[in-house]
Amino acid sequence: MKTLIANGLILLYDESGWKTAKKDILISGNRIERIDDALSAEGCKVIDASGELVMPGLINAHTHAYMTIHRNCADDLAFFDWLDKVQKIEDSMTEEDVYWTTLLAIIEMIRSGTTCFVDMTIKSAQEMSGPKSAAAGAVRDSGFRAVISRGLAGTSDSEESLMKYGQAVREMEMFRNESRLSFIHGPHAPYSCMADYLRKLTQSCRDRGIGQTIHLSESLAEMDGMEKEHGMTPIRYVDGLGVFDVPVIAAHCVYATDADLRIMAEKGVSIAICPKSNMKLGNGFAPVKKMMDAGVNVCMGTDGCGSNNSLNMFSEMNAAALVYKGADRQAQDVSAADVLKMATINGAKAIGLEGQLGIIREGATADLILIRLNEPQFIPANNILSGLVYSSNGSETDTMIVDGKVLMEQGKLTSIDETRVFKEIRKMAARLNTSAASDA
Amino acid sequence: MKTLIANGLILLYDESGWKTAKKDILISGNRIERIDDALSAEGCKVIDASGELVMPGLINAHTHAYMTIHRNCADDLAFFDWLDKVQKIEDSMTEEDVYWTTLLAIIEMIRSGTTCFVDMTIKSAQEMSGPKSAAAGAVRDSGFRAVISRGLAGTSDSEESLMKYGQAVREMEMFRNESRLSFIHGPHAPYSCMADYLRKLTQSCRDRGIGQTIHLSESLAEMDGMEKEHGMTPIRYVDGLGVFDVPVIAAHCVYATDADLRIMAEKGVSIAICPKSNMKLGNGFAPVKKMMDAGVNVCMGTDGCGSNNSLNMFSEMNAAALVYKGADRQAQDVSAADVLKMATINGAKAIGLEGQLGIIREGATADLILIRLNEPQFIPANNILSGLVYSSNGSETDTMIVDGKVLMEQGKLTSIDETRVFKEIRKMAARLNTSAASDA
Repeated sequence: MKTLIANGLILLYDESGWKTAKKDILISGNRIERIDDALSAEGCKVIDASGELVMPGLINAHTHAYMTIHRNCADDLAFFDWLDKVQKIEDSMTEEDVYWTTLLAIIEMIRSGTTCFVDMTIKSAQEMSGPKSAAAGAVRDSGFRAVISRGLAGTSDSEESLMKYGQAVREMEMFRNESRLSFIHGPHAPYSCMADYLRKLTQSCRDRGIGQTIHLSESLAEMDGMEKEHGMTPIRYVDGLGVFDVPVIAAHCVYATDADLRIMAEKGVSIAICPKSNMKLGNGFAPVKKMMDAGVNVCMGTDGCGSNNSLNMFSEMNAAALVYKGADRQAQDVSAADVLKMATINGAKAIGLEGQLGIIREGATADLILIRLNEPQFIPANNILSGLVYSSNGSETDTMIVDGKVLMEQGKLTSIDETRVFKEIRKMAARLNTSAASDA
Repeated sequence: MKTLIANGLILLYDESGWKTAKKDILISGNRIERIDDALSAEGCKVIDASGELVMPGLINAHTHAYMTIHRNCADDLAFFDWLDKVQKIEDSMTEEDVYWTTLLAIIEMIRSGTTCFVDMTIKSAQEMSGPKSAAAGAVRDSGFRAVISRGLAGTSDSEESLMKYGQAVREMEMFRNESRLSFIHGPHAPYSCMADYLRKLTQSCRDRGIGQTIHLSESLAEMDGMEKEHGMTPIRYVDGLGVFDVPVIAAHCVYATDADLRIMAEKGVSIAICPKSNMKLGNGFAPVKKMMDAGVNVCMGTDGCGSNNSLNMFSEMNAAALVYKGADRQAQDVSAADVLKMATINGAKAIGLEGQLGIIREGATADLILIRLNEPQFIPANNILSGLVYSSNGSETDTMIVDGKVLMEQGKLTSIDETRVFKEIRKMAARLNTSAASDA
């Protein structure tokens, strides 16, 4: 069965920039087959997009989906107090816990317009047949799209690191036929992974033809530590180890220097900025204008719910378009059009799917959202890009299609039992005692 | 008829801070009569608040409601390019235009949890019987609450300034019996009002027993100009003219110095911070932690839609709790509890209604909102204050009561014809040609 999205205003992109057009979209299988005027509805499921904007689903290029359980459990704290609270909870989580918390993350992402996420998680699904297993299981069961990395730290020869690496690789093999699911390696950071481990993971990326994602230059403490230990920035350090010789998504890069950015542009590294997390943890503002000027592919993530505390990419776009103007005292820095590109086209490029995701065009994968325009925050409709970035709150997402399948239609989820997920999460929160003692 | 809000979780505040309790609320007339367990529903309209948080409506302490027509019409521009575009539109607006744009603002505020706003507007209603007249008419007709100021600039003796002043005063007299509506003076700024005009308006405040609101220390250009012309900061300058001898809400204060803040604390001036507007126009970050430490009453506003571009106070609270942490590189600065107080209790204090608005307690005015907690962004419910400030997007407001009357029930507006307002705004946007040529 084909799907026809009729009567919508479509958000298109080409080399001259973003534009809108009143067109119909015909979806066949998981692809956009045609975009044209008044297409025939014969034999199609028809979605009426009157009064709505049809746009690419947003791509969250850096998050930790399992951390929905940490939402609002450790706020307004200094970094190490925060980390202590977060880790205590995380140490008690099981593979099944990660399954449910990731499903909660997916529900929030669906409701706020995100169709794909790059995850750094803490458990690997170890049984293909296991019903409720880890992030990969949640993505498979929900029809969502994700690029999953198992967060890894330590040395190349410790028993624990070897075990986790082995589990990560086994998971990749188990899920190799899932089209909506792919895997990369997830070395946590240059201060938590020894040099030999970073080299081993990079070699494993090369062997498997995959990329990796890593936290880089997130805090002043990290910058100071790397300077003391290695006499250079984290970015120069990992570059020297060959980390950038495979495709990389570097998260944060708040303290990236001009020289760092030249390296990253040259090596084709993508940077996933996380403006809200960087502020919440007191790390400051990334040099986003400089990243763009250096020619780095800048994409965007929410980070985990421990440090945000939501997964709303519209809210993240809003922050990105505002805070760098504030930090640079330049109202023209980082425009609405730039930010929308980070959350769509650049995110797709970061995961190696440029032209396939994050864009509406014939032949691309059908990952789309429908946004209700008949809301006060979009009226009058002076400029649609500004509306999406400055005025939207993310709740206007009404319908979502991922891989050609409808995951939400007029606010109703089709692939996830929301009530059941909320119930499981509440039980888990009670068991893990996630509620802060300071709770109001 | 009394109203009973039953089965809700209530957000309360006392000297020890915010807390929640499962209680019923009985509203009689425009007051909260009782808060207790299992109150009788006899003779009451019952609102079932199961699964919802009942909290004080938010108070937007600085906005220009008429500027909804400027929404997304002039973005990512340098300040003077922005101003040029905005003023061209504004110069063509009529009293009726201000009526409809203010109604649109009220719709957006209702849908995102705000029950009261402090407005600086451009027209005064001149006919009590006039059906569609200015901001005051829109507030009267919608059942909303506002403190309105007519923005005034110039000198005390120019014909135009005298005319506008006269209109502002006449409007105050016409609407003096409207309980939800009050008026203050609105001298625009120290660089746009001559000293004699500021003195005259302050004297008028004294004569009428009202306060005033003014933009202060918003931009570096303003700081430089005042330093050159008067050899002092804008805040010291207006203090010298006596402006702070009546109740004042000073908007922005991005560049307030420590000495400025001491003056403001001593004179009991309230500061309405506008974090999103300050970023969007490239003005930077106000010293909010210092304001709090100095003992200034800090409240919060969205500013107008020309520089935000929404009136969503939940989004503004989110920004306030994040950006100052980023600017100060201190994760403990400006907590969720602080920010929630700015948007409620401190806002009420700024308009002289401390203990009456912005708080749920017996005897207070019934300006309340009901928030749906059964949303993914609030689950698990680890900390409700963090949830409201960090995770909410503002769309969770389900029901609103202002002055004891229901203005929205389960998402349906009761006092405004939304479709009609949207239609009038679209016509006006076409007539005023507000759509940017650069529109996508």
